[in-house]
Amino acid sequence: AGKSDHQPGERSVDFPVSVVLPAGGTGERTGLQTPKQFCSFLGRPLISYTIQAFERVSWIQSIVVVVAKENVDLMTDIIQRFQHRKVRVVPGGSTRHRSICNGVLALGEGEEAAADRPKVVIIHDAVRPFVEEDFLYKIARAAKEQGAAGAIRPLVSTVIATTSEGYLDHSLERAKYRASEMPQGFTYDVIYEAYQRCSESDFEFGTECLHLALQYCGTNAKLIQGPPTLWKVTYKRDLAAAESIIKETLSQSACAVTGGSTQAVTLADALQKAVGALDMELDVIPDLMGENARYLLKEWNFIQVSVNRSCLSELEALLTDLEAANRALLHPLVVIWVHLSASDELSISERMAEPATIMDLAAAAKLRNILLYGIQLHQSKDTERWERSVLKVAEITSALIRERSPALVGQLLQA
Amino acid sequence: AGKSDHQPGERSVDFPVSVVLPAGGTGERTGLQTPKQFCSFLGRPLISYTIQAFERVSWIQSIVVVVAKENVDLMTDIIQRFQHRKVRVVPGGSTRHRSICNGVLALGEGEEAAADRPKVVIIHDAVRPFVEEDFLYKIARAAKEQGAAGAIRPLVSTVIATTSEGYLDHSLERAKYRASEMPQGFTYDVIYEAYQRCSESDFEFGTECLHLALQYCGTNAKLIQGPPTLWKVTYKRDLAAAESIIKETLSQSACAVTGGSTQAVTLADALQKAVGALDMELDVIPDLMGENARYLLKEWNFIQVSVNRSCLSELEALLTDLEAANRALLHPLVVIWVHLSASDELSISERMAEPATIMDLAAAAKLRNILLYGIQLHQSKDTERWERSVLKVAEITSALIRERSPALVGQLLQA
Ligand SMILES: [Mg+2]
Ligand SMILES: [Mg+2]
Repeated sequence: AGKSDHQPGERSVDFPVSVVLPAGGTGERTGLQTPKQFCSFLGRPLISYTIQAFERVSWIQSIVVVVAKENVDLMTDIIQRFQHRKVRVVPGGSTRHRSICNGVLALGEGEEAAADRPKVVIIHDAVRPFVEEDFLYKIARAAKEQGAAGAIRPLVSTVIATTSEGYLDHSLERAKYRASEMPQGFTYDVIYEAYQRCSESDFEFGTECLHLALQYCGTNAKLIQGPPTLWKVTYKRDLAAAESIIKETLSQSACAVTGGSTQAVTLADALQKAVGALDMELDVIPDLMGENARYLLKEWNFIQVSVNRSCLSELEALLTDLEAANRALLHPLVVIWVHLSASDELSISERMAEPATIMDLAAAAKLRNILLYGIQLHQSKDTERWERSVLKVAEITSALIRERSPALVGQLLQA
Repeated sequence: AGKSDHQPGERSVDFPVSVVLPAGGTGERTGLQTPKQFCSFLGRPLISYTIQAFERVSWIQSIVVVVAKENVDLMTDIIQRFQHRKVRVVPGGSTRHRSICNGVLALGEGEEAAADRPKVVIIHDAVRPFVEEDFLYKIARAAKEQGAAGAIRPLVSTVIATTSEGYLDHSLERAKYRASEMPQGFTYDVIYEAYQRCSESDFEFGTECLHLALQYCGTNAKLIQGPPTLWKVTYKRDLAAAESIIKETLSQSACAVTGGSTQAVTLADALQKAVGALDMELDVIPDLMGENARYLLKEWNFIQVSVNRSCLSELEALLTDLEAANRALLHPLVVIWVHLSASDELSISERMAEPATIMDLAAAAKLRNILLYGIQLHQSKDTERWERSVLKVAEITSALIRERSPALVGQLLQA
C-alpha cells in the first residue's frame, strides 16, 4: 500500500500523453494454450494489471489496447469487468507493426480535434505489467525532447554470431551492445510519419519502432536504462515470477481492527511487533469510522481481532464494509478473524458453533472475492506460552496473506 | 517422481566426463546479501540442487565446485549436510576464468593417473539448477567429437548498438545472433591448452571459454540450442520462479496409504479421481510392506487415510518409516493425515483429543523436515454432501502439497 502514490505535480508532464498497448501475441513460448496477456493471476488477466499500471498515472490521458480481431469481445469484457477507464479496444493487424500502426491511427482519428491528439505516444507490451510511473515519466520527457526514446537493459548473456553450419563465428563485445526493451515513446508526429513512410516489408518483417523513426524521420532515439521490473512475461517460469511479485505487493500491509477492548488491543499490539519481524506492516485501529474509513480504500489486508463471543457481528460488519467499498474488484482480499478466548474453559457449544459459522461466512465471502480465514488462540497467564501463541498467530497470518490460498478459506486454525 | 529416471545405457557415454561448477558469483543483480548460489529454497541452497542435477547422471564421474576462498567451509558443510557424493571443493581465483582454470587443473592433478583424467569437461553455472541429462548428453557427445560445444538460446530482445552519447546507433539482425548460455563442454586437452596459452588479459577480462578454445586451440565450438530450462537465476524475480519450479516438481505425485479398510479404500479411490483433475497423480496402497516399500525411496508425498480412531498409530508408523528411509534429506516432505469419522456423533473427548496430538506430532516431525497436516471429514449418506467433502479434501490436499507452508503444520482442517 502506498507504493503507487506519487506527489501530484512533482513528476507530472504538461503535455498530453497516450499509450498504445499491442496485445496480439499468441504466447507460444510459455507452452500454454492461452496467450500470456490473457493468463489469469489471482483471478485477473495479466493485461488488466498492465492497464492498471498506466491507469493510475494521472498524466496519461488514454490507452488504446490493440488485440487480434477474435479477442476484441474478450478484451471488452475484461475492461468492463474490472472497471477500467481511459481504455479503448482496437482490432489488430496481421503483424506487430500493423497492430501498433492501427493503435496510433486510432489516437488521431474520430471526434477528437487535432488539438486533442497526444503530443507523445508511449508504446508498451501488454506482458510487461510492472512498469513504474517514474520510468514512464523519463520516457515521455525524452520522447518529447528528442522525438523518440526507448528503454534498454544490459545484456544478460554474451551474444554470439553463428556460422551457417552451427559453429561459433565470433562473440560481440558486450559493453557496446544493449537489449532493446519496452516502453518506447515517440512524439505523435514522428511515429505517425514513420508509419506513413515505411514500406510493406517494414510492416511485415520489421521489429523495432525506434529503427523506423531513425530510417524514415531521421530521429535518433534517446536510450534510457530501465529497471529490471520492465521484464517481459515470456516463458512458463515467468508466470510464477509474476504471480509471486503480485502476491508480494498485496502482502505488504494489514490493518488490525480491535473493537477497542483492552485485551484485543494488547493482542493486536503484540501481533504488530511479531509480523513486523516477518516484513509486514500492521496498523492497529479500533474501528473503521471517521478518519479510519480510509483503510477501506487502499490495498490493505484485514485482521478482525475478537475477544470471546462478541465477535461475529464485528466480522460481518467488516465484510459488509469491504463489499460496499468494492475493495475486492481487482484482486482477492484477505480477511483473518483472530479469535482470542479469554478462558481455557470455553463451553463445548461455543467451541463447536464457530467452525461451522466461519465456514459459511467464508463460502459467501469467497463469491465476492474475499478470502476469509480464522485463527483461534487462548489467553494464557504463562508469559512464555502466550508469546509462543502470538508468534504463531503472526506466522499463520503472514502465510495466509502471502499464499492467498482459496482452498483453505473458512478454516479455523489453532495458534 | 520418475522424471529423473533414464534407461541405463540408452543415452550413456563411453568416455569419462567430469564437471566444473564455478560458484564464485556475488549475486549483485538479485539485490540480496547472500550470493544466489547459496540462497535457500525449501531449506536447501540453490547450488545443492545444481549438484544434484549432475549427481543423478550415472555417466558423470566427478564434480569440482569452485568457490571463493571465504566460502570453502560453507560449501564443504553443504556437501556433508546434503550427503553429496562425487564432489570436490576447490578455492577460486580473482576472476571467473581463473576460477574455472583452477577447477580444470584440479581434475588433472593428484593421485589420479593421466589415464583417469576426464576425456570431456563440462562447465556449468551453479545458478542454472534445472539442466537435464538429455542436454548434458548432447553437449558431452559434441564436445568429444568437435573439441568444444556450447548451449545457445534465441535472443529474447532485439540487440542494439548505442552511440557514446546514449543514442541508437543500429540494431542487429536478430536471426544471425544467439545468446551464449551454459553448459559448455570441452575435451580436457582443449580446455587445458586454452588456459595454458591464454594471456593475463584473457584471465582478467575474458568472458567466453568457447572464445579461448577458438583463439588458442583453433577449435570451432559446435553450438546446440538448449531448452528454456537452462535459464540462469539472475534477478530477484528468478528466485520466485525457481522456487515455483522446485515446488511443482515435488508436487506431482502422492501415495495414499489406506490400511486396507473398505471405507478408507473407497475414500482413497474417490480422492485419486479428484486430485487427478487437479493434475496430481495418486497411487493407493494398503501399506508400505514388501513391494510397496519402494514408495519410500522416491519423491512421493504421503496421505495416511484413517477411519475412526484406529489411526494415530498408523500415522506414527509412517513417520517412523519415512525417517528411517532418510526421505526428507533433500527437501521437506509432506504427510497429510486424512481422518474419516464414520459417524457424525463422535464423542466430545475424541474431537478434542486429536487436534492437540496432531499438533505435537507435527512439531516433532518438522524437526525432521517432514510437514504434517491433518484433514478431517465425516462420512455421509447424502451422496451430494459426500462428494463435496471428497472434493474439498482433494483441494486442500493439493494446496497443502503445492504450498508446503511450514506455518500451517499441525493444523487439523475441516473438509
Ligand atoms: Mg501513480
Ligand atoms: Mg538420470
